Amino acid sequence: MKTVKVTLPTRGHSYLISIRSDGFAHSLNVIKKNLHEKKLFVISTGKIKKLHGKKITKAFGRTLKLVWILVNDSEQNKTLSTCEKILAELSKKGAHRKSMLLALGGGVIGDMTGFVAAIYMRGIPYFQMPTTLLSQVDSSIGGKTGVDLKTGKNLAGAFHQPRAVFIHTDFLKTLPAREIKCGLAEIIKHSIIADKVFFDFLNKNSQAILNLNPSILEKIIYRSCQIKAQIVAKDEKENHVRATLNFGHTLGHAIETLSRFQNIKHGEAVAMGMVYAAKLAHKMTISDKDYSVNIENVLKKFGLPTKIPAFDKRQYQKALARDKKSGGKTIKFILVKKIGKVSIVPLSIGGITRSL
Amino acid sequence: MKTVKVTLPTRGHSYLISIRSDGFAHSLNVIKKNLHEKKLFVISTGKIKKLHGKKITKAFGRTLKLVWILVNDSEQNKTLSTCEKILAELSKKGAHRKSMLLALGGGVIGDMTGFVAAIYMRGIPYFQMPTTLLSQVDSSIGGKTGVDLKTGKNLAGAFHQPRAVFIHTDFLKTLPAREIKCGLAEIIKHSIIADKVFFDFLNKNSQAILNLNPSILEKIIYRSCQIKAQIVAKDEKENHVRATLNFGHTLGHAIETLSRFQNIKHGEAVAMGMVYAAKLAHKMTISDKDYSVNIENVLKKFGLPTKIPAFDKRQYQKALARDKKSGGKTIKFILVKKIGKVSIVPLSIGGITRSL
Repeated sequence: MKTVKVTLPTRGHSYLISIRSDGFAHSLNVIKKNLHEKKLFVISTGKIKKLHGKKITKAFGRTLKLVWILVNDSEQNKTLSTCEKILAELSKKGAHRKSMLLALGGGVIGDMTGFVAAIYMRGIPYFQMPTTLLSQVDSSIGGKTGVDLKTGKNLAGAFHQPRAVFIHTDFLKTLPAREIKCGLAEIIKHSIIADKVFFDFLNKNSQAILNLNPSILEKIIYRSCQIKAQIVAKDEKENHVRATLNFGHTLGHAIETLSRFQNIKHGEAVAMGMVYAAKLAHKMTISDKDYSVNIENVLKKFGLPTKIPAFDKRQYQKALARDKKSGGKTIKFILVKKIGKVSIVPLSIGGITRSL
Repeated sequence: MKTVKVTLPTRGHSYLISIRSDGFAHSLNVIKKNLHEKKLFVISTGKIKKLHGKKITKAFGRTLKLVWILVNDSEQNKTLSTCEKILAELSKKGAHRKSMLLALGGGVIGDMTGFVAAIYMRGIPYFQMPTTLLSQVDSSIGGKTGVDLKTGKNLAGAFHQPRAVFIHTDFLKTLPAREIKCGLAEIIKHSIIADKVFFDFLNKNSQAILNLNPSILEKIIYRSCQIKAQIVAKDEKENHVRATLNFGHTLGHAIETLSRFQNIKHGEAVAMGMVYAAKLAHKMTISDKDYSVNIENVLKKFGLPTKIPAFDKRQYQKALARDKKSGGKTIKFILVKKIGKVSIVPLSIGGITRSL
């Protein structure tokens, strides 16, 4: 087992991310230490319960009463009304201020569970048990929670840190290949913004990674969590450096919004956005070399798309203007200086749109 | 003009409540100092815009572009779906992370605007301009924001403090008498939990107050805000002393929930709850004297109801169990020791229900 500590100095508060492949004993222990009642509210989907419910009930069921609340976790369902359903179930099933939630699922489940925990009775604690690679290396860490509005991704939400994050790599065995690739896009992103050695490692070991070699998988998940945890510790509320984690996401979110969250997955949109942001940095002479070539090659090795879909430019402009990082006419954009280093640059939304 | 400062030591942050009857110049100045754009998003109702829109546009319109977002503010509409509508409008109308909201209305508008501000792009600033007596002395102060679930009042929400609270007593001139009385219930509550001299003052001056005598009105609003601000400053997140503000509210909320927020107004339910809580304290020998008599007499002087409606006891039990202050089988109850002093006592929900 490996662990990463997320320290939030402004709050005098920290929590652990554990990464392991050998059963649930450790996770159960941590949960038990935090609980005020012998009951745990598990927010998940029918599919995940079918795949992993028995294992989890076997591991937890003797000590805890598991109360399952199942929802549909497609991106189209990451809405306030799905949260309202979860909130109503919690209330009906007797959850109170000291009750605890477990997010068992991918990013959509994690984001919504965290948000529900942030607002139920104005805040109750929760744990993250991410079941997809994407949520294991990205969304389960850092306390960003929320839902989409029709006008854009993650436009409503709260900062609410989990009590602990339990990463079980065994979950990945049942994950579709496309989902694995989406997680790899975020891992590659972490390497580009913070660690060239890691980027080269990913490049060299692409086959072993795609074959889900357990020790290499654990290694890259660990390094990825470390990078994210360090950045979050420096800037929980995204006043400065945390924005670098949005590398590839600004255009990525616009692509997702314009595709109505249907044809293009988050990791795929981020892959496209990263190549664009690297090309743009070169055009703007922010980077000496055109790193987009290296980035595109690595992404392609992992089977990720890199070409931006041809939506109407005015549509792109509208979607960018509605992004959280937008100030109306300008937007904070993350550009590659070199592999392992990015910078935050305010750009004109009109200018970006023209360059697409 | 009078001002009350709300100091939140844990955040190194404070804000001002101003109480006045002489126009909007001061409020406009404060808003201008905080704004990052010449635009203010006003969340209100059609009725309030009709009554006060012209005045406000006249006062603010030269300096600011007012973007009105109007919703229905009945208690039945204090829901996540109404918030979703406001969020969608904000996004469509170009609100970004530095945009600011103004809650112009009663408690429902204030609670929802504060909550929308708490979650829009994970938090933007807002101002409170309460137009009812109830919201002027209570809900606009202290940063408790949120919505109701079908199972109970204020079950989803967030702590999010306003940048400033602007109390204009002129708004009260157009307020129905029943609404004035509801506000008086909370003012009386503040006197019971913190200040016997104030309680006696209210008792003696009931006629002048009901006639909306401007200087007496300003005086009691000021004292009421002071009491609330001091308690909030000591305990923003309601870990201990802030719970005393719930005096009369525990049973009050249950009454409101059981009446489906229709026949009984918040202030009326609180009035009933206060008399019950005073009687209970005497029965339990927590208070030497039966203060419920004094309390009931004052409430009656102000035309407030004091008799609990005869809902089924099991219904009461269910509603109490779902309260935020419930721990499943017990609930934190606020009991009168004497006028000016209350204590927080955990009581069995079954016991309360039997005593009804």
